[in-house]
Amino acid sequence: MPELRLNPITREWAVIATERSRRPHDFKKADETPAPKPDHAPTCPFCTGNEAMTPPEVEAFREPGAQPESPGWWVRAVPNKFPALAPEGVFQPQPVGVYLRAEGVGTHEVIIETPLHNHTPATMPAEQWREAVRMYQRRLQALCRDSRYKSLLLFRNEGRTAGASLEHPHAQLVALPFVPPVIQSLVDGIARYRAEHHKDPFEAILEQEHREGVRLVHTAPHYTAFVPYFARVPFEVWIVPHAPQAHFEQVGDSERDAFADTLQHVLQRIDAVLSQPPYNFMLFTAPVNTAAEVEFRWFLRIAPRLTIDAGFEIGTGVGINITAPEDSARYLRGEG
Amino acid sequence: MPELRLNPITREWAVIATERSRRPHDFKKADETPAPKPDHAPTCPFCTGNEAMTPPEVEAFREPGAQPESPGWWVRAVPNKFPALAPEGVFQPQPVGVYLRAEGVGTHEVIIETPLHNHTPATMPAEQWREAVRMYQRRLQALCRDSRYKSLLLFRNEGRTAGASLEHPHAQLVALPFVPPVIQSLVDGIARYRAEHHKDPFEAILEQEHREGVRLVHTAPHYTAFVPYFARVPFEVWIVPHAPQAHFEQVGDSERDAFADTLQHVLQRIDAVLSQPPYNFMLFTAPVNTAAEVEFRWFLRIAPRLTIDAGFEIGTGVGINITAPEDSARYLRGEG
Repeated sequence: MPELRLNPITREWAVIATERSRRPHDFKKADETPAPKPDHAPTCPFCTGNEAMTPPEVEAFREPGAQPESPGWWVRAVPNKFPALAPEGVFQPQPVGVYLRAEGVGTHEVIIETPLHNHTPATMPAEQWREAVRMYQRRLQALCRDSRYKSLLLFRNEGRTAGASLEHPHAQLVALPFVPPVIQSLVDGIARYRAEHHKDPFEAILEQEHREGVRLVHTAPHYTAFVPYFARVPFEVWIVPHAPQAHFEQVGDSERDAFADTLQHVLQRIDAVLSQPPYNFMLFTAPVNTAAEVEFRWFLRIAPRLTIDAGFEIGTGVGINITAPEDSARYLRGEG
Repeated sequence: MPELRLNPITREWAVIATERSRRPHDFKKADETPAPKPDHAPTCPFCTGNEAMTPPEVEAFREPGAQPESPGWWVRAVPNKFPALAPEGVFQPQPVGVYLRAEGVGTHEVIIETPLHNHTPATMPAEQWREAVRMYQRRLQALCRDSRYKSLLLFRNEGRTAGASLEHPHAQLVALPFVPPVIQSLVDGIARYRAEHHKDPFEAILEQEHREGVRLVHTAPHYTAFVPYFARVPFEVWIVPHAPQAHFEQVGDSERDAFADTLQHVLQRIDAVLSQPPYNFMLFTAPVNTAAEVEFRWFLRIAPRLTIDAGFEIGTGVGINITAPEDSARYLRGEG
């Protein structure tokens, strides 16, 4: 019998329909098996020596004496060459009859996480990955200083099926002049839950997940990684900090390193269990430059792309998850 | 410069970012080129003669004297063999600690649109397609008589990339015991627009689209097909009835036939311009069995699957459309 489960923050139902349930290796598709890659690709715009193929960098971690736009860096942030949004002008919606339009004001950056073409977040040395995550934070910090921006999203597309057009390891960052629907629904949901229960919903979720234990993937001193009870897709994982901190931008260095370690561990488990599947991850952080501080807790959501959203999901907004969250978590813990 | 455009009903922004704009033939992928198919496939559960491979039919249009579960039908409705929801029990959400869960109560049917394996909505005879759409309506009418259901969605997945697992022409229908987020946001948006503007937003949209003309795809006596100003994906088309009717279930026979003809024409144009692309379409109709009648207008949304939703779209809820709606419409009108 299929089951419906509610996300207590957004109040969205997900269907857990395990009639067609599959074990991890059943999800594997031949065309998703990554072919061996070289550590340097001559035509890759993100590889060392090809710095001129990207727009001029906005920030880089590089060796002392190394010049901008040239080798010697270990993490590099550049504007997206084909930006969804452009950092000029002001967000001023104007009516066009019944519609509204505005200039597409925003910033769209790429964070090149390593000079090595064939590494991944799961395979790069821990120290390198910590540096990549340090750059995530530095760019978020830089962009929220622009008062035109109200919301930031750091995300990563891994694999062609997940929307990645270049295979060299990279994340993306967008700054938006408005709070988009997904983040607004988190803000609204947190406020509603607190008003009804006099408690932060993340605190309530963490308490229950630790009490039940069946959906835990990994517990670290400052973070818990778990498959949410209301997961919309197979092997979805949330990494939630124990401290109720609204802004990832404000996380201290050692906690940020601990977060990078937890995230790397979870991505290694996902790669091991699902044979390097395509995935997206999204780092949600509180709206910025708001009149009043909003209640929020930053967190990261990993959504493997193992199934296809079709007419049902697009037309209803309800996810169909064919692997029980408890099963996903058990596999990810390595208990087969 | 990218542009932001607002859906006046749901108040969602879409990014129109044509820097990477592509003409129709640039979207074509080799693996999406449909191979020639036979008109009958021995192992296809939806082909004539294989009726025993599906669960027992719930309704069929068949020749006089032909027996159920055997050849002689021209449209056939059956329960989904792997249903996302099951038609037993009652929807009674129960707390599980901080979460809510409910039995996955619902109905999930498949409408086999023709006995011929290798037809499509674009290629089947107009009369056959009208019969398929007549069955859509009959099944919607039947399911809304079950007072447990609050919302119905008829949808169609065409092509593997769009989530179709069987190639034989078929649509799907789900009945849900609650109003899902996408339909609730239409209901809320229509009410808000009416309260603010004292006008049905669909009427305002139709007036503007006819006045401007640049996004029109096809105009029929009872329907207008257009690419919405705020289209989230390339070549998105809405078919909106001119009459402000809430329920597709209540459309009269001749208007329903005219709708089938309009839909078929648009799908033929999409197939011609984009070489039979994968797509989803969703037929939105008003919530049913509600305490009070809600303001709504049924309509159909076609969303070709030419690009991939990735971290940005999943994490923000904002679409990035790389083809200007005016360009999509021009191509679909055949003006190249």
